[in-house]
Amino acid sequence: RYGYFGRVTPEVVRLMFCRVSGCLTDGQIFVSAKGAEMVSFNIRDITGIRMLQEEKVEVVLLTSTEDPVVQAPADNLAKSLGCQVVQVGGEPMDDLLPMVEKRELQWKDVAYMGNDKPDVKVLNLAGLSAVPSDAPVVAINAAKYTCHSLGGKGAMREFAEHIVLQKQKAKSQMNQDRIDNSSF
Amino acid sequence: RYGYFGRVTPEVVRLMFCRVSGCLTDGQIFVSAKGAEMVSFNIRDITGIRMLQEEKVEVVLLTSTEDPVVQAPADNLAKSLGCQVVQVGGEPMDDLLPMVEKRELQWKDVAYMGNDKPDVKVLNLAGLSAVPSDAPVVAINAAKYTCHSLGGKGAMREFAEHIVLQKQKAKSQMNQDRIDNSSF
Amino acid sequence: RYGYFGRVTPEVVRLMFCRVSGCLTDGQIFVSAKGAEMVSFNIRDITGIRMLQEEKVEVVLLTSTEDPVVQAPADNLAKSLGCQVVQVGGEPMDDLLPMVEKRELQWKDVAYMGNDKPDVKVLNLAGLSAVPSDAPVVAINAAKYTCHSLGGKGAMREFAEHIVLQKQKAKSQMNQDRIDNSSF
Amino acid sequence: RYGYFGRVTPEVVRLMFCRVSGCLTDGQIFVSAKGAEMVSFNIRDITGIRMLQEEKVEVVLLTSTEDPVVQAPADNLAKSLGCQVVQVGGEPMDDLLPMVEKRELQWKDVAYMGNDKPDVKVLNLAGLSAVPSDAPVVAINAAKYTCHSLGGKGAMREFAEHIVLQKQKAKSQMNQDRIDNSSF
Repeated sequence: RYGYFGRVTPEVVRLMFCRVSGCLTDGQIFVSAKGAEMVSFNIRDITGIRMLQEEKVEVVLLTSTEDPVVQAPADNLAKSLGCQVVQVGGEPMDDLLPMVEKRELQWKDVAYMGNDKPDVKVLNLAGLSAVPSDAPVVAINAAKYTCHSLGGKGAMREFAEHIVLQKQKAKSQMNQDRIDNSSF
Repeated sequence: RYGYFGRVTPEVVRLMFCRVSGCLTDGQIFVSAKGAEMVSFNIRDITGIRMLQEEKVEVVLLTSTEDPVVQAPADNLAKSLGCQVVQVGGEPMDDLLPMVEKRELQWKDVAYMGNDKPDVKVLNLAGLSAVPSDAPVVAINAAKYTCHSLGGKGAMREFAEHIVLQKQKAKSQMNQDRIDNSSF
Repeated sequence: RYGYFGRVTPEVVRLMFCRVSGCLTDGQIFVSAKGAEMVSFNIRDITGIRMLQEEKVEVVLLTSTEDPVVQAPADNLAKSLGCQVVQVGGEPMDDLLPMVEKRELQWKDVAYMGNDKPDVKVLNLAGLSAVPSDAPVVAINAAKYTCHSLGGKGAMREFAEHIVLQKQKAKSQMNQDRIDNSSF
Repeated sequence: RYGYFGRVTPEVVRLMFCRVSGCLTDGQIFVSAKGAEMVSFNIRDITGIRMLQEEKVEVVLLTSTEDPVVQAPADNLAKSLGCQVVQVGGEPMDDLLPMVEKRELQWKDVAYMGNDKPDVKVLNLAGLSAVPSDAPVVAINAAKYTCHSLGGKGAMREFAEHIVLQKQKAKSQMNQDRIDNSSF
């Protein structure tokens, strides 16, 4: 009943990190004989990110030094969404912790979408975390939510709807708490 | 028995609106490092649109300001089909109502294919309406017909066959009515 | 026992017609903003065509005036396979009958793979005929064999293996007949 | 108990051959009107190859003279992975046996991933061998392990995890043997 005591802004999830490769893409890399490369996004996932931004969630896209192909498409996507891209190393925690602290947030205010072994630590820590349905078992076990959709085919959209629902529940709970508190 | 009284042309569906993104495409957007972009259509869906045109149904393709990638491919497709492309805003109803009235049609003469929340209002109003099988629940609930096929993979073709069948049923019902009327 | 009496070359299937669009492709057409277009073939299907050519079956690829996108890719594919491409109209029978007669074959010596309504007549006539598993019902009903594989994803390979098996059965039956005839 | 007697390096699998076409790709070849060609890899499979390289397994990619499209993409991929590409003929055994002997290995130290009839001989010989779930029956029957994943969609990753697990089991067995030997 007094769970929000001392917190100024009790809304859940104000920052969302999302892996580009395998979460916003299906992991496929198209390669031509001349070396030109393509990846694909799904418009439903992009709509999902926009839904979060409208709910005042800051969305940050994560790329990796090990997967250089998605860097340029991720930069283009981030530009059109007005969001930041961060290139993380083998342990994303090292890159993300300073960002969380700089925004004076705690891990429970953070949502994370990943899809493989390096994501395990953050998947465990984040307040809300998800993996696409085609993620390896090691990542599925660490995530709080396993999407029904595949990576790059609606998983981000599904997680976005899940986050929005959690935020609405938290708000209505807080309102209820206020009513309960004033009743007694 | 007297349902067509006062109507000059009682055939159902004379105008069809179809979302390009997510209905004629599967929502995937291919992006290269250089920013070049591609979407894909299915030849069966294009055949479906041609089937409707042969049945004297005017087909209009709908694009959105929020999804600029499909604009150029949609324009090319419309050119080869000899049909119009209309860019709609957040509430398609505002853009489509003038078009329906200008053609002196009612919503029950209109077929609509959409695939997401902004389509709900028109999906409810249109005489025949459909969504691909991979549409979000909010759109499925508003549509009169849910396709077995996925968006961009035959959903439009399936809906076209459904419309043609409804038109044939309506015609044969009218013929029956005429026989019944003259018999008595 | 005397079924092959009077026939000089009793081997089954010496000519194979195969639709490119929807049989060798999955029907998807990739379109860029600049109008560039792509389709995709599967290496297993190309191997299937090679298997038939090794069994002395002449393979002819069929394109359509209604589907101009696959023309150039089909020409390239035919070149690498050393086979002919024929552009057929709304009723393929009109274009194919002269070819069958010129080769002094009968329809029972011909295999046909199609995937839609215009193919129904030839699917019925050809000695062996098949459709991919994702063909419309009207085509499935006309075909003698429905592949388990999808168009552009192994259906041609599956049909090629089916044809080779039928040829082997026919040969072994003929050998058996010869033995039976000499025994009595 | 004395199974490793006489062997200097008892670790299993030190060399891995992997077909590019159909194992690292899904067999789809994208062809434009201008003849430009593309294939696609999956980032999970590339991660799988890296996992093997970290476990000191030499990975060699195999291309074929019959499938020229994947040659250039395979060369690019091999460059980024720091591994070798070998073009094999109709019977890969002829090309691979000298490589195995040159490295003073036996077939039981070799892992092989293939997906069709020409691979049958090596699939039978190799210590560990696998095919993607969409391989023809003739190849599935020859392989020691059938992946749950499709070719080009995680099959290589799955086989890599299988190999790493076998290596760990072999190591722990050897340690156990050493303990058993010293106990008596």
